[in-house]
Amino acid sequence: MKKFLDEDFLLENRTAAKLYHDYAENMPVFDYFSHVDPKDVYENRRYASVTQLMLVDGHFGDHYKWRVMRQCGIQEEYITGNGSDEEKFLKFAEVMPYAIGNPLYHWTHLELKRYFGITETLSPLSAKRIYAAADSKLDNLTARKLIEMSNVRTLSTTDDPVDSLEWHVKLRADKTMKFAVLPSFKPDKCVNIELDGFLPWLKQLEAVAENKIETLEGLETALDKRAEFFDSVGCVISDHSLDVVFYEPATRAEVEKIFKKALRGKKLSETDVAKYKTYILLYLGRLYKKYGWAQQYHVGALRNNSVRALKNVGADTGFDCVGDGAFAAKLAAILKTLDETDELPKTILYCVDPSENAVLSTLINCFQQEGVSGKIQFGSGWWFNNHKFGIENQLRELSSVALIGKYIGTLTDTRSLLSYSRHEYFRRILCNEFGKLIENGEYPDDIESVGKIVQDICYNNAVEYFKKSVTF
Amino acid sequence: MKKFLDEDFLLENRTAAKLYHDYAENMPVFDYFSHVDPKDVYENRRYASVTQLMLVDGHFGDHYKWRVMRQCGIQEEYITGNGSDEEKFLKFAEVMPYAIGNPLYHWTHLELKRYFGITETLSPLSAKRIYAAADSKLDNLTARKLIEMSNVRTLSTTDDPVDSLEWHVKLRADKTMKFAVLPSFKPDKCVNIELDGFLPWLKQLEAVAENKIETLEGLETALDKRAEFFDSVGCVISDHSLDVVFYEPATRAEVEKIFKKALRGKKLSETDVAKYKTYILLYLGRLYKKYGWAQQYHVGALRNNSVRALKNVGADTGFDCVGDGAFAAKLAAILKTLDETDELPKTILYCVDPSENAVLSTLINCFQQEGVSGKIQFGSGWWFNNHKFGIENQLRELSSVALIGKYIGTLTDTRSLLSYSRHEYFRRILCNEFGKLIENGEYPDDIESVGKIVQDICYNNAVEYFKKSVTF
Amino acid sequence: MKKFLDEDFLLENRTAAKLYHDYAENMPVFDYFSHVDPKDVYENRRYASVTQLMLVDGHFGDHYKWRVMRQCGIQEEYITGNGSDEEKFLKFAEVMPYAIGNPLYHWTHLELKRYFGITETLSPLSAKRIYAAADSKLDNLTARKLIEMSNVRTLSTTDDPVDSLEWHVKLRADKTMKFAVLPSFKPDKCVNIELDGFLPWLKQLEAVAENKIETLEGLETALDKRAEFFDSVGCVISDHSLDVVFYEPATRAEVEKIFKKALRGKKLSETDVAKYKTYILLYLGRLYKKYGWAQQYHVGALRNNSVRALKNVGADTGFDCVGDGAFAAKLAAILKTLDETDELPKTILYCVDPSENAVLSTLINCFQQEGVSGKIQFGSGWWFNNHKFGIENQLRELSSVALIGKYIGTLTDTRSLLSYSRHEYFRRILCNEFGKLIENGEYPDDIESVGKIVQDICYNNAVEYFKKSVTF
Repeated sequence: MKKFLDEDFLLENRTAAKLYHDYAENMPVFDYFSHVDPKDVYENRRYASVTQLMLVDGHFGDHYKWRVMRQCGIQEEYITGNGSDEEKFLKFAEVMPYAIGNPLYHWTHLELKRYFGITETLSPLSAKRIYAAADSKLDNLTARKLIEMSNVRTLSTTDDPVDSLEWHVKLRADKTMKFAVLPSFKPDKCVNIELDGFLPWLKQLEAVAENKIETLEGLETALDKRAEFFDSVGCVISDHSLDVVFYEPATRAEVEKIFKKALRGKKLSETDVAKYKTYILLYLGRLYKKYGWAQQYHVGALRNNSVRALKNVGADTGFDCVGDGAFAAKLAAILKTLDETDELPKTILYCVDPSENAVLSTLINCFQQEGVSGKIQFGSGWWFNNHKFGIENQLRELSSVALIGKYIGTLTDTRSLLSYSRHEYFRRILCNEFGKLIENGEYPDDIESVGKIVQDICYNNAVEYFKKSVTF
Repeated sequence: MKKFLDEDFLLENRTAAKLYHDYAENMPVFDYFSHVDPKDVYENRRYASVTQLMLVDGHFGDHYKWRVMRQCGIQEEYITGNGSDEEKFLKFAEVMPYAIGNPLYHWTHLELKRYFGITETLSPLSAKRIYAAADSKLDNLTARKLIEMSNVRTLSTTDDPVDSLEWHVKLRADKTMKFAVLPSFKPDKCVNIELDGFLPWLKQLEAVAENKIETLEGLETALDKRAEFFDSVGCVISDHSLDVVFYEPATRAEVEKIFKKALRGKKLSETDVAKYKTYILLYLGRLYKKYGWAQQYHVGALRNNSVRALKNVGADTGFDCVGDGAFAAKLAAILKTLDETDELPKTILYCVDPSENAVLSTLINCFQQEGVSGKIQFGSGWWFNNHKFGIENQLRELSSVALIGKYIGTLTDTRSLLSYSRHEYFRRILCNEFGKLIENGEYPDDIESVGKIVQDICYNNAVEYFKKSVTF
Repeated sequence: MKKFLDEDFLLENRTAAKLYHDYAENMPVFDYFSHVDPKDVYENRRYASVTQLMLVDGHFGDHYKWRVMRQCGIQEEYITGNGSDEEKFLKFAEVMPYAIGNPLYHWTHLELKRYFGITETLSPLSAKRIYAAADSKLDNLTARKLIEMSNVRTLSTTDDPVDSLEWHVKLRADKTMKFAVLPSFKPDKCVNIELDGFLPWLKQLEAVAENKIETLEGLETALDKRAEFFDSVGCVISDHSLDVVFYEPATRAEVEKIFKKALRGKKLSETDVAKYKTYILLYLGRLYKKYGWAQQYHVGALRNNSVRALKNVGADTGFDCVGDGAFAAKLAAILKTLDETDELPKTILYCVDPSENAVLSTLINCFQQEGVSGKIQFGSGWWFNNHKFGIENQLRELSSVALIGKYIGTLTDTRSLLSYSRHEYFRRILCNEFGKLIENGEYPDDIESVGKIVQDICYNNAVEYFKKSVTF
């Protein structure tokens, strides 16, 4: 019987434990995809309560936790509503015991242990006590402190191309910073031509890029200017939410027509939308290649399933799920098109549907490049796959059909600054997989070689991967 | 080396064994979805042979067993044909040794052990002896006795809305009953407008509901009357076989036109069918909500693959398989539409394709409801997933992305009254999963809390779930 | 701690070890699907270097290995290009350490151990030494010797219907042969009417069959003549790469028109192509049935994803991946159509997408046949599934919903004559699965019965399966 969450949590044999403690545990973190608010970092935000830090962060919060609260029938008032911070924490504690087998159980207790030094089990019985104990530690737990405690050297935030990057600029100028905060480029609003937000967003882009957008060229120039600016502030990565993957090639003239139709506020056909999206995704891919950035494609989410919740609570609050549409051929076509002319940037592919793991893990090795190590990556278990079995499945799929030794490892996709415990979670599972392989005679008992691979996956590979080799 | 099928069958550590024996084993059964024939129960049927009870039950029988017999090339004569009961049993025994790793191996031996007290391994060598031994016990094994031996408190049968529920009515009046037998509402024939059986079924409905069906309103009124009647006889659940999920919204006027076209015997287009099915599924959902019932959607089966078998042996005899079409967006749209106006009843989602587990386990938490615990459920490993790995996968998926503690557990989907051994099978696997989590330090060693969760999943959650809170 | 690749490699308990060593290890091999070149066998080819044997075989080579080399950014020169054999081997050795968890790590070391007696771990440090050591053994390792060392009794090559089978004819006449080499029938070029190669291939067929092809009947007669010839040279199996499954029934007159359109070099519509493919696949199925052959359908690969690689390196060189399109209903329709008139031959179904395992493992038992054991088979973990987890998943899926005891086991799909180590790999995993079931009390401790099943799966079932029962 192993003790819950002890030193060797998730480490099922001695080799696994040795790999974790001697190689993984102290490696720094390169968090190349997060939702950290750069303003919080710059201003070194303090948190009014553990609830603010752990459940609702003001900006968005941890919808993983909200979802399971809703499953218990807890009123929205105590989730995203006007309930007091303590009430919300107590309500959250109510659901904890039912979360057996859920990573939330582990993450929450890692969060309490690593950042607050609390080792008691969270339940309705302990909730008040834990709330008070956590509260007393909050003074020390500023945004910067939390990130430093997490051993983060670099983190990428998620930013709209129209963002001024005001806080990033200030952060770069701040000599007291002990870690780097980089912007990343997320132009979903530019891609989603069919949504209401498209034209207003174009207006913003026009203003910030100081470039009229009356043609496709105008749009391209504006995007390029923003990319140049983002690059100058340290951007190394972009991100796309490709809920549905489109591949509908068209001539530039056709797309020009579609774009102008959109500018005039006309309704576009599905084919119009597909053609524009294909075009702009390819355009952006070439842009990223020019700046030596990596691009991320997050595929397959089915979003905003509840009309009521969208109205009352807003988007990205826990009402999305895994989708199941086929996309392999279209995704392959996008990559193939960019690759054909050597304009494919480094690319990280994620899918929220784990039954697509086999597609992504095999697709990546169709587009690797001479002289680049692991140019195309199968990304870490994303969102609903970020749990023990999901992580194991991703690691096994990747190692079974490709080289896991060239993998750039995990990221937080942070929901709060406590989410860094997910790195520890991932590392333990990774070391456990390797430990089992060694102890089962499936790899030589060469702890140094495997320890080196562990360190590469934890940190070194990402550092190498995001070193830009700008080509223009 | 563990002994085959011993006390601790499928329980791989001491905590798992303790959870099973101290908490799960003696819990009653709420079998909320079965194919039990209420007439058999009312008349307290006796079985002419173990073959009648175990393989062919007169009405339908255990096609799980038939399929593997066919895989061995055994003639249909000895499966569903005119072979003698003993011959059929001997033929079945021939295939047993090859079933290593198949739950049929376990279920069959559990059936022999629990109901007949036979512990010998079934094989061609022992078959005659076992047949005789089982035969000598049959006198005691009446339908009611079997259900009582299985510790069943409540079971739901599967009934057509046009059914008179004659036997259910009699069962309710029978003071000697030690368990409840409830009807359930399965209006597939009402949904499947494209099938030959539609118009004859409407005639039956017209007659039994004493309501003319010449318009959509006529149909709706008739359905409502039947639901009211079913409700009065204790119905708490409905069921839909959604082999393909449709979502094609239309105005009521359009659907009225389509319905009248069908009434006139005209061929409907695919779009017509989709529109009608969408409409009627939504209508029925609202009806269930009104009566406080739960609805079940069974998605994704690909049926009647053999033309020859359909002609010779009939439907539902073992010639169906797992389908693979995408349905997430359409299923989400159905639920979203009902939820938008707060007309979504409690809903249990099943899919026969295990690669959709991620979809269902995440879709459920988009539609939960304040004040209701686990309103939307990801149903137990269905049909071809009802085996050790299938059950484990469903439990892991559910616990990894939602709260397994709010799960209403398994059902038999009985093929015979011996199928209740499947509850034992499920409970052992459940306790084993939890036992492993605890012994591996992934949950605190708090056997009482986990034992409580086990009991909830075995029985209590279902009892709570099917307590109706009628809203009209 | 188990030693890497020791006697009990992959055998996790004593029962597993006993099953492997006492029952599986010495069973002969019936390799019913391989890419062995019959000329190499007839001429008893010698290999110029271990690189020629292990990595690039002149004809095609082991693209599994090439893919991971590319993932490391290794230049194509050292993969398929003009690099020296030693350079290529050294480059391959560079990637080895990163292949933790990849079957290539195991296969490569099994290849070195079984055929060269080399037990040192391959890495950049040992590469030169191993290259030299392997080189010194090459004299003895001729093509025939390698196959004999692998205990192969029968192997099927992969042959185009227009092939003269010159080498097969010679091999049949060679009295010194210690194993049988059978042709197999792979008419993909006949099916792929939309490809440029179609008309030239028809010309070849016309010539070799000595039959004018100006009508569908001409094509059919030519195919029949070739099948008759293949049959006379010992063919027992055909193979189809069904990247996409079509089912679009049409009248013979329609297909005749489509075929003539193609003959005139006209462009076909997608529907035309689907109708022709459906027709010809059904025609070929009936033909195989007539000759008592088995047919193989390999479903779901997404091929030639890199335009650049296709141009520079050619097809089938490592730029394919797993696809994800739904196909169950269409595949079922093909089989149903053939089965309806009792013209369905023995059929082995493979899919490269493991999320379709549930479809294939359940589809097979819809079409079994009286008097034939396991007529329809769910084929061994194919291509990207040929790794430990992939093999385990296929075995578990198959045994959970069907009888694994009737399974015809694995094949090499050889990339080189060293690929026979994959049979050992498979057998160890199979015995390990069974050993775990027994030691966990999930099957009686009856080693003889299970040993018999193991031997059946390793060899006997395939022998029985490919004994032709010609029906015309």
